[in-house]
Amino acid sequence: MEFMTGKKEKEVLDLAAVFADGMEGREVKVNGAIMSVRNMGDIAFVILRKRDGVLQTVYEKGVTDADFAELREETFVEVSGVLRKEERAPRGMELRLKSVRILSKPEEPMPIAVSKWKMSASLEAKLDMRSLTLRNLRERARFRIQEGIARAFREYLHGEGFTEIHSPKIGAKGAEGGANVFKLDYFHRPAVLAQSPQFYKQMMVGVFDRVMEVGPVFRAEKHNTKRHLNEYTGLDFEMGYIDDFTDIMAMETGFLQHMVEILKKEYSAELEILKVKLPEVEKIPAVTFTEAKRLASEKYGTQIKNPYDLEPEEEHLIGRYFKEEYGADFVFVTHYPSKKRPFYAMDDPTDPKVTLSFDLLFRGLEVTTGGQRIHSYTELMEKIEKRGMDTEGMEQYLSTFKHGMPPHGGLGIGLERMTMQLLEEENVREVSLFPRDMSRLVP
Amino acid sequence: MEFMTGKKEKEVLDLAAVFADGMEGREVKVNGAIMSVRNMGDIAFVILRKRDGVLQTVYEKGVTDADFAELREETFVEVSGVLRKEERAPRGMELRLKSVRILSKPEEPMPIAVSKWKMSASLEAKLDMRSLTLRNLRERARFRIQEGIARAFREYLHGEGFTEIHSPKIGAKGAEGGANVFKLDYFHRPAVLAQSPQFYKQMMVGVFDRVMEVGPVFRAEKHNTKRHLNEYTGLDFEMGYIDDFTDIMAMETGFLQHMVEILKKEYSAELEILKVKLPEVEKIPAVTFTEAKRLASEKYGTQIKNPYDLEPEEEHLIGRYFKEEYGADFVFVTHYPSKKRPFYAMDDPTDPKVTLSFDLLFRGLEVTTGGQRIHSYTELMEKIEKRGMDTEGMEQYLSTFKHGMPPHGGLGIGLERMTMQLLEEENVREVSLFPRDMSRLVP
Repeated sequence: MEFMTGKKEKEVLDLAAVFADGMEGREVKVNGAIMSVRNMGDIAFVILRKRDGVLQTVYEKGVTDADFAELREETFVEVSGVLRKEERAPRGMELRLKSVRILSKPEEPMPIAVSKWKMSASLEAKLDMRSLTLRNLRERARFRIQEGIARAFREYLHGEGFTEIHSPKIGAKGAEGGANVFKLDYFHRPAVLAQSPQFYKQMMVGVFDRVMEVGPVFRAEKHNTKRHLNEYTGLDFEMGYIDDFTDIMAMETGFLQHMVEILKKEYSAELEILKVKLPEVEKIPAVTFTEAKRLASEKYGTQIKNPYDLEPEEEHLIGRYFKEEYGADFVFVTHYPSKKRPFYAMDDPTDPKVTLSFDLLFRGLEVTTGGQRIHSYTELMEKIEKRGMDTEGMEQYLSTFKHGMPPHGGLGIGLERMTMQLLEEENVREVSLFPRDMSRLVP
Repeated sequence: MEFMTGKKEKEVLDLAAVFADGMEGREVKVNGAIMSVRNMGDIAFVILRKRDGVLQTVYEKGVTDADFAELREETFVEVSGVLRKEERAPRGMELRLKSVRILSKPEEPMPIAVSKWKMSASLEAKLDMRSLTLRNLRERARFRIQEGIARAFREYLHGEGFTEIHSPKIGAKGAEGGANVFKLDYFHRPAVLAQSPQFYKQMMVGVFDRVMEVGPVFRAEKHNTKRHLNEYTGLDFEMGYIDDFTDIMAMETGFLQHMVEILKKEYSAELEILKVKLPEVEKIPAVTFTEAKRLASEKYGTQIKNPYDLEPEEEHLIGRYFKEEYGADFVFVTHYPSKKRPFYAMDDPTDPKVTLSFDLLFRGLEVTTGGQRIHSYTELMEKIEKRGMDTEGMEQYLSTFKHGMPPHGGLGIGLERMTMQLLEEENVREVSLFPRDMSRLVP
């Protein structure tokens, strides 16, 4: 009988091991994809792309045991050779090739030069060939950073006693109501895709006190802008026993601080590749919706058109205002008008026209919506009635409140928007692995 | 201007702080849900439920500043009092109440006694009131364990250089083909929900070398069994540069070892509540499909009906065989017949009727399917042609292979099935937070 006893130790090294101290002169085995080949006559530089960076290897005519003609871009190889210091090579070390073993060959050359530092292709072209264009080091780095954001979110909240949940994405009715839901046929019954885990995470506060979820969110919004996706990754949390909604903002600030820390510590190579300017997170200003509007309008001489909503242009100016006045990259805008918030948002008892809620703007773009929720069954039912809402499909959600719920609140962060603003990208599709928008359903 | 500077420090303690050394005699503040009240006349035991356990508090007539009539189950409170050693209390400490502040009151008593150690309710009844019945300590503990499994998966693979991805759940066509897909209308175009992240994770091996994803998986299978869900959480990984498919099994074994370790270390309270017998993971036997069938059939005197597939009963007997013969809880069953595996599975060059693939059985139930994939474009196209498949919607997937892919393989684990087998539950719905099956779409 054969037995598996755990991860196999391999002879091939990863780059961390290759670039470790004291490796010069050592003979090593490494694998990777040939990213580019520069033929200098008697020698050639063969750059290998690996998950953790690139390695310069040197093919020497008459020395390296390999057919040079076979060393083409996107050939996957396992090579062996001796490490030599070379200050012009990435990280000051190169591998003089002794032998090359071909693991896999491409059948056609790449349709686009992914080995270039900056690819010359339109966003549409890049997305059409996404699985190939992401092989570009800069394109790829964005998603490593994105991983860091999601990891920081879970890691930080785990440390704060949050339990991770997985709520269903198919349901009988949308949480927020409204028309922006994708409909599907579920064994001959009408069903919808979840617009958010809102109802589920609230219900689970009664069970776990604090919960989080990282998962897909579906919005059938007919917006075709640079900021909208019809499927995105939501970072959600909900916490009980809050004193007020500033507990939620404080927790988010803690997460952002942890995010910056983890990015600095574990994603420094990618920050360097993309020349990311990490945001200021030591202290984040909080300002009311009305005040924010007024400040931006006064300073930049713009007119307030709609007193109940923030136009994208206003968000931009508010971001600019707080950058200029306070050096702030983030700003919490609080007390949004009640009529613009869902029924479960808690109204301010001192002014029921506004809610105890907030958006977080990051460099002038909303990346989070959150706030305190109503926890009293009576209040919830009153608000539902006042809005003339249909409660069909909400029975269990409402019943939960009838049987007791702690004061609570939470938020939802758009992972792609957060990534976009961190990297100062112009279009959210740049930071969605395989974006879904009104016109894009493949690849 | 107000500023947020990070997580707020609170006066209320969590249970870790309450039960820390040297707390006896200290006056503390704690919040929680009243789980049960036992009236003894002059005193009453009021048990608080918190995310990290329970705390016995003692109401004393004439001493505690509170209206006893208000202390009902599922009332959410913040209490203060003095900690006293009491060996009959959970963890040997109780809180003598000085005062009680009511945070929130239920409007109706619970419809079911969730405070009981074992709830007397059918699975259907429990699921109908899921947000309430999960407040039961044993019900809740299952999902803490489930969190531990998912955490272990990500944590282990992160340490092994895997990048976490988020692939789209809405697409133009199902990865595995076949009829078991949910269809939806995507802005007047036909679309489907992802049956697995298979195509995406394979494509991303060319970019990140190693990728993982934890996310929902949708299967429109018309199976109404104790093992099937129509939406579940998939733990997926895919890795490049493998020598052969045993690299995948070895990596999974490493994950399972890490899982057991993390559960022991960080989820010991929940393991204790549920009396979980942790599985043997030091060494996991691997046996071929044909051999496994033969061994079970010979030992238990059963007939092999279908030589190309494993019946649930056969899986059960194979599990039993390896438990009895080797003390094994897990067994890898390898070399599944090619006709039962998807087109991308790599056939065994020494016997093309079988694939270089495996299932992992856990206590007699399949919890993982994995294997090596075809990485040669020519071989992939040949197999597609031999099967007479339509390649519509697969253009980018196939193009990726044309331009070069390393040898690779991966697997998918069903999180709920893994949890079910670990906890030795009879029905997978017990360990799905809000299960979706052919008849259940709410709550």
